[in-house]
Amino acid sequence: MKVGVYAGSFCPVTKGHVDAIERASKLVDNLIVVIPININKTFKISLEDRTELLKEAVKHVKNVTVCNTHLALADFCKDVKAEIIIKSIRNAVDMQYEMDMADINKSLSGIETVFLAADKKYAVVSSTFVRELAAFGKDITPYVPAHLAEKITKYFKN
Amino acid sequence: MKVGVYAGSFCPVTKGHVDAIERASKLVDNLIVVIPININKTFKISLEDRTELLKEAVKHVKNVTVCNTHLALADFCKDVKAEIIIKSIRNAVDMQYEMDMADINKSLSGIETVFLAADKKYAVVSSTFVRELAAFGKDITPYVPAHLAEKITKYFKN
Amino acid sequence: MKVGVYAGSFCPVTKGHVDAIERASKLVDNLIVVIPININKTFKISLEDRTELLKEAVKHVKNVTVCNTHLALADFCKDVKAEIIIKSIRNAVDMQYEMDMADINKSLSGIETVFLAADKKYAVVSSTFVRELAAFGKDITPYVPAHLAEKITKYFKN
Amino acid sequence: MKVGVYAGSFCPVTKGHVDAIERASKLVDNLIVVIPININKTFKISLEDRTELLKEAVKHVKNVTVCNTHLALADFCKDVKAEIIIKSIRNAVDMQYEMDMADINKSLSGIETVFLAADKKYAVVSSTFVRELAAFGKDITPYVPAHLAEKITKYFKN
Amino acid sequence: MKVGVYAGSFCPVTKGHVDAIERASKLVDNLIVVIPININKTFKISLEDRTELLKEAVKHVKNVTVCNTHLALADFCKDVKAEIIIKSIRNAVDMQYEMDMADINKSLSGIETVFLAADKKYAVVSSTFVRELAAFGKDITPYVPAHLAEKITKYFKN
Amino acid sequence: MKVGVYAGSFCPVTKGHVDAIERASKLVDNLIVVIPININKTFKISLEDRTELLKEAVKHVKNVTVCNTHLALADFCKDVKAEIIIKSIRNAVDMQYEMDMADINKSLSGIETVFLAADKKYAVVSSTFVRELAAFGKDITPYVPAHLAEKITKYFKN
Repeated sequence: MKVGVYAGSFCPVTKGHVDAIERASKLVDNLIVVIPININKTFKISLEDRTELLKEAVKHVKNVTVCNTHLALADFCKDVKAEIIIKSIRNAVDMQYEMDMADINKSLSGIETVFLAADKKYAVVSSTFVRELAAFGKDITPYVPAHLAEKITKYFKN
Repeated sequence: MKVGVYAGSFCPVTKGHVDAIERASKLVDNLIVVIPININKTFKISLEDRTELLKEAVKHVKNVTVCNTHLALADFCKDVKAEIIIKSIRNAVDMQYEMDMADINKSLSGIETVFLAADKKYAVVSSTFVRELAAFGKDITPYVPAHLAEKITKYFKN
Repeated sequence: MKVGVYAGSFCPVTKGHVDAIERASKLVDNLIVVIPININKTFKISLEDRTELLKEAVKHVKNVTVCNTHLALADFCKDVKAEIIIKSIRNAVDMQYEMDMADINKSLSGIETVFLAADKKYAVVSSTFVRELAAFGKDITPYVPAHLAEKITKYFKN
Repeated sequence: MKVGVYAGSFCPVTKGHVDAIERASKLVDNLIVVIPININKTFKISLEDRTELLKEAVKHVKNVTVCNTHLALADFCKDVKAEIIIKSIRNAVDMQYEMDMADINKSLSGIETVFLAADKKYAVVSSTFVRELAAFGKDITPYVPAHLAEKITKYFKN
Repeated sequence: MKVGVYAGSFCPVTKGHVDAIERASKLVDNLIVVIPININKTFKISLEDRTELLKEAVKHVKNVTVCNTHLALADFCKDVKAEIIIKSIRNAVDMQYEMDMADINKSLSGIETVFLAADKKYAVVSSTFVRELAAFGKDITPYVPAHLAEKITKYFKN
Repeated sequence: MKVGVYAGSFCPVTKGHVDAIERASKLVDNLIVVIPININKTFKISLEDRTELLKEAVKHVKNVTVCNTHLALADFCKDVKAEIIIKSIRNAVDMQYEMDMADINKSLSGIETVFLAADKKYAVVSSTFVRELAAFGKDITPYVPAHLAEKITKYFKN
């Protein structure tokens, strides 16, 4: 049984994330979507709420589990016996950083990283953009899972 | 049973290709390494010889089959019931083109493409570089499968 | 009255070109779409046929004229009293070359170049891809103006 | 009558901005240069002073108006009936982000974005560089409008 | 006698830095490795400790001096009569920023900048990565000078 | 005594080349500018004429020698006891290829490569652009050494 890991901070989860997770889930038997706990960064949505929203967003994908971790990603993968990390790449410019991270993770724990190209429809939809739109009071419904749009909007109201 | 496809023209096969194929073979049950027949391009090594050298190069990888095809890659994947195309990316600059190709192939036949980052050791080793080195009479042994270096060198002697 | 110039070799014209020309036509009073005659390059479609197909492709856009020229682009712009060159950019990687060309054209004749980002829907649709698909006998209808698909296909049949 | 919008935080306005605004002003009948009010970011120069310095910097360009706004850029454009956003690109690396923003703004309000390549003379002159130079006590006169250099320097003195 | 300058914040010094400094030291008679004092940034390691660790890290390289400065880099170079700045580039994406900085420094003081490509072995090893690994309690020994690993680790323990 | 090598095909030599060679000549005691003989490529200007034009173009730079070679660049460097290869980079996009080449040359013969950023004034002036301008009958004087413009133009007349 092949286990894969998909990681992110999901602040907030976007339609792009959901599409990538759906596609990633087909590459493995079980996909663990994990939010690493980054103590050096502050988020407008609490870890608990991000985890909860993420669970809501992907509950229709059968072989997906959502969790969070205090471990470095390479260690987490070992712990859950994952064989691959799956990343979604929104554009070529991001690729350099991600190739470096893949290299580091491989040398730390031997884990392989594979990359999916984000669907063109979602390539511009980053969490940062959603936060900015919400801060300006714009409707974020086209960019986040429809049934979560109202909840997510509240976190970014000024 | 999951079938993957890895494609290239392999003129000649390099150590970088072999490393990528070994890694790709672990992501699927069967990996088909295919040389698409490109009638608009001429190669210093004939299709037959490229196929033969490639077979020699990866014969130690159990779940790998080598072949060539007249079909477009998206059609070939359908024919062999492959679920994913696996590409190895040597650097971020190549990524834009590959993301476009992945998008085209997905829209043509629904096939998913996943990307591996080439191992740093092999990131500079392209077939083009090997051909240039060989043309200058340089030893290409560090860059191609050791047991094939002599054979490959002959194709590029001036 | 503001005149703009949009240039390309259009071998063949794609849906991406048509979309870009429609958008460019709104930026000026008259848009001249020009095929520079490149004597150093050979094309699978003759200059006459490329011009004809292009005319067919954009005949619904009122303020657009199609022509071809032996002049360098900077000189052609002076001749037709154009104030701007309009280019469509498919991805960030192409931008460096285009910024250099814009700089050259400005220093040659003072003409300004403005860039449009290709619509995501068409960002992967280059003439090169269309030619490759057609060469493999694939249906190119989704990528070229629908009423020209049949004609265009014939040029690339092997 | 064609209205265009050029946006920035101008902290401080540079010679590169002035050159871009002069060029952009020729593409439209009226150019509105706007400073969006970003409540999540702090600036070394107050909104009022940035607006004032910008007015001083471009007062020689007849069809330019300077203002600031609480609205998202897409909404502001609707309000002032602008048809295009004009952006100046300093290098190809910035282009990916700007293409994403253009796409977002188009889907939010239908507004078109056009890009100008920054003049080579000004391509390295960002507000960030000016701030860093000023912080080290270097003369910033070559990089900002000459008659404002003294005023601007004061904001960045340590 | 040719003097060169290599600058960085070295928080912490990595094996990649040491390799680059060794290579840079061969290009000049004397190499001054300098930490510019950046009052706008906070570092997890104090200036004194960064300077000390750096001295330890490169003490085996004979023609290297380590120091820090309140001056802008261009001014520092003049002061120490340096003819060139030597930078190590980890990947092509970083190059645009560095080319701009080189241009600025040349126009400020006439100083020339030359670039070395980081050795593939060290291309992924940035100070940022080391800090992140250390924060997760990972062993950073493979990435920093071996005899300093223990000391460096302490600064990033949570 | 430090020997450096600067290589190119110089078809034709441009003002950008001359500027780069002048700057490179200051980094070493002797600079050898070499045209590798590429038997797989055809040039509009013969090897002899390219060598002659190059000599004319840089005869004002005292410590520069011009020659050509049948050897691979790494071997040539060994032969002439060069310690460094000096390359001029016109833009960040070219950097990936050049970093790969530097890596290859280092592993072949231990030779170090250093990069200079092309002066902004010359960053758009490639030999390719000069050939295209000349083919359209445009004046190339601003882009090539003034005293050679007439001679060079003749090679590209149609």
